[in-house]
Amino acid sequence: MPKISERGILMPASPIRKLVPLANAAKSKGIKVYHLNIGQPDLPTPQIALDSLKNIDRKVLEYSPSEGILSFRTKLVKYYKKFNIDVNVDDIIITTGGSEAVLFSFMSCLDPGDEIIVPEPAYANYMAFAISAGAIIKTIPSSINEGFALPSVEKFEALITEKTKGILICNPNNPTGYLYTQKEMNQIRDLVKKYNLFLFSDEVYREFCYTGAPYISAFHLQGIEENVILIDSVSKRYSECGIRIGSLVTKNKEVRASVMKFCQARLSPPLIGQIIAEASLDASDEYMLDIYNEYVERRKFLVDGLNRIPGCYTPIPMGAFYTVAKLPVDDADKFCAWCLSEFEYEGQTVMMAPASGFYTTPDLGKNEVRIAYVLKKEDLQKALFVLGKALEAYPGRVL
Amino acid sequence: MPKISERGILMPASPIRKLVPLANAAKSKGIKVYHLNIGQPDLPTPQIALDSLKNIDRKVLEYSPSEGILSFRTKLVKYYKKFNIDVNVDDIIITTGGSEAVLFSFMSCLDPGDEIIVPEPAYANYMAFAISAGAIIKTIPSSINEGFALPSVEKFEALITEKTKGILICNPNNPTGYLYTQKEMNQIRDLVKKYNLFLFSDEVYREFCYTGAPYISAFHLQGIEENVILIDSVSKRYSECGIRIGSLVTKNKEVRASVMKFCQARLSPPLIGQIIAEASLDASDEYMLDIYNEYVERRKFLVDGLNRIPGCYTPIPMGAFYTVAKLPVDDADKFCAWCLSEFEYEGQTVMMAPASGFYTTPDLGKNEVRIAYVLKKEDLQKALFVLGKALEAYPGRVL
Repeated sequence: MPKISERGILMPASPIRKLVPLANAAKSKGIKVYHLNIGQPDLPTPQIALDSLKNIDRKVLEYSPSEGILSFRTKLVKYYKKFNIDVNVDDIIITTGGSEAVLFSFMSCLDPGDEIIVPEPAYANYMAFAISAGAIIKTIPSSINEGFALPSVEKFEALITEKTKGILICNPNNPTGYLYTQKEMNQIRDLVKKYNLFLFSDEVYREFCYTGAPYISAFHLQGIEENVILIDSVSKRYSECGIRIGSLVTKNKEVRASVMKFCQARLSPPLIGQIIAEASLDASDEYMLDIYNEYVERRKFLVDGLNRIPGCYTPIPMGAFYTVAKLPVDDADKFCAWCLSEFEYEGQTVMMAPASGFYTTPDLGKNEVRIAYVLKKEDLQKALFVLGKALEAYPGRVL
Repeated sequence: MPKISERGILMPASPIRKLVPLANAAKSKGIKVYHLNIGQPDLPTPQIALDSLKNIDRKVLEYSPSEGILSFRTKLVKYYKKFNIDVNVDDIIITTGGSEAVLFSFMSCLDPGDEIIVPEPAYANYMAFAISAGAIIKTIPSSINEGFALPSVEKFEALITEKTKGILICNPNNPTGYLYTQKEMNQIRDLVKKYNLFLFSDEVYREFCYTGAPYISAFHLQGIEENVILIDSVSKRYSECGIRIGSLVTKNKEVRASVMKFCQARLSPPLIGQIIAEASLDASDEYMLDIYNEYVERRKFLVDGLNRIPGCYTPIPMGAFYTVAKLPVDDADKFCAWCLSEFEYEGQTVMMAPASGFYTTPDLGKNEVRIAYVLKKEDLQKALFVLGKALEAYPGRVL
């Protein structure tokens, strides 16, 4: 047989994938599994978006433009204005999910061997897209003990080489829920300027910031407007991850021209998804506020609950709908597998994402898990109770 | 500013893209442009597929599985059986259009510097996906004078090196409409076997074969079952290019495992598109026959009409809905641009795809165009008449 590519071998398989068969086995035994591991909100897609599906009145479901439907892009300009992100319609390219925006920005900006710096823990699929482009991610650990604050300038500078082409941030952060401060954003801006780097800024959780201070986008940073490539998606904010609609926004014409070639090669982003996403932009303020308030309550509930479990600790996440918690266990990978395969409490157990999948530095995050608050409060309550029981029973418990 | 990638510079911009502004300018002057250039069928999407949109009754448009929805994949097994393609549900991975199936198969099988052999003229975007993977496409010209038959074994063998990892065919062919014979398919099989190659087989036009002989899929070739990677899409057969649903089918477990990592990185294919595609599989025999008969008639009409224009020649395409025609012009790129920018006949003109975009060998196809028969007969008739007038008037006409 001909051999598969080295790239195919290098591509990481997420540790959560190993847990899926265990979860399925538990379910087949009738055990109720609380999914604290996923990034799919349980909250409803806006009704106006669901209605738009029923109102599609076309005879042919044809290609849309490679850059996305003009009316949708025009509405996005207005959407971004609400966050003081001042872009025009030409700056916005519609992608097949935020995923494709990451892939195309890496493909367009990074040559094989080029390096980008990413604070970790970080969304595991950045690594997959970097491998797709032949690029190398250099990570700088942030620490739970410092609440996952941005590492110091010195730590960034220690990693910068001739090969460094960019910095990637996810803000608000998946998996930590961390929200960068103005001071931290300025630090990033200064690095980007000083070393002439691209700034890949994944801001798909911008609607979910739990602080009075105004949200800071990479586009708010003065003097690096041409360096910024914004990665965006409607998936999380309207609970419509399945429609696969994102966007890549940049004022850099050269980058746009390059990205457009990748867009043209794949012909067009999903037509129906764009129709739904465009309608979603008209979701009422009430809908957005309800979703927001729900997450605020769940966050408090989850963070308080976790910190009450003996030996557990999580900082208060200021954004997104995740938190990373430290557990009193020898190995979170083993503990998460054990919860699914050897534990149950009154027919219930929990599934969590081991944090090891979000770090590339070996052994980091070994006793950490990512917990998403995409379950309703009653279920979160039960899940926290079951987690407490699991930690009491786990043979690999440490103090 | 930081520099974009070499890859971004290398990515080809299709010659048709240069014509788009010219076509828009012509339209803005009130000129009717007959689009003979596009691959989007004008025929209706099946009603059952359009109805499926109205019947979606979900509160959350959530991620679907990375490999695609099980019920859809299960129905595809039955669909393939109709063509004696004997695969099971695990062999089928749903992709975001046939485009993603090409990208992921290249990413999974080809390392930077690896080579694949492709008979040309060929679909231009294969080149883009090869560049994305850092791989090299070596083309073997087929000739309009031989009706675009498969080049000889010797020509393939002359290109095979240590770096050769596969052969790619598109059957029925875009842009030529050529349909490989059993003898030609056996020739490909023997090459694949002898040199231990992957066979990437793009069969998205299989519904449109205009010959009594049974359709020959790469999966029908004995002894290379593990080498075959089938690229498929519902776009063309159900006139639903916009939903972006395709599939990658292979019995090679190692390839599948690698492809699945790329699938997991992009999370999931479009949910709504899969629902529509699954419903499309229930399109009535009558719908499929109507579409087929329409193309049969248009094909005869177009081919006869082209061959009646003095100096024009096209072989009879046995599949798909394209043909490549030789025109009595100095340069088809110039002629196609001229038709849009300097010509009109009674307020009408034609837009065609210059064949140069389908060849990598310099100067090949210089006097050829690809013409799609995705217009209704009355429009094809007018377009052919206008094309005849344009050829009479064109200053770069040659005998």
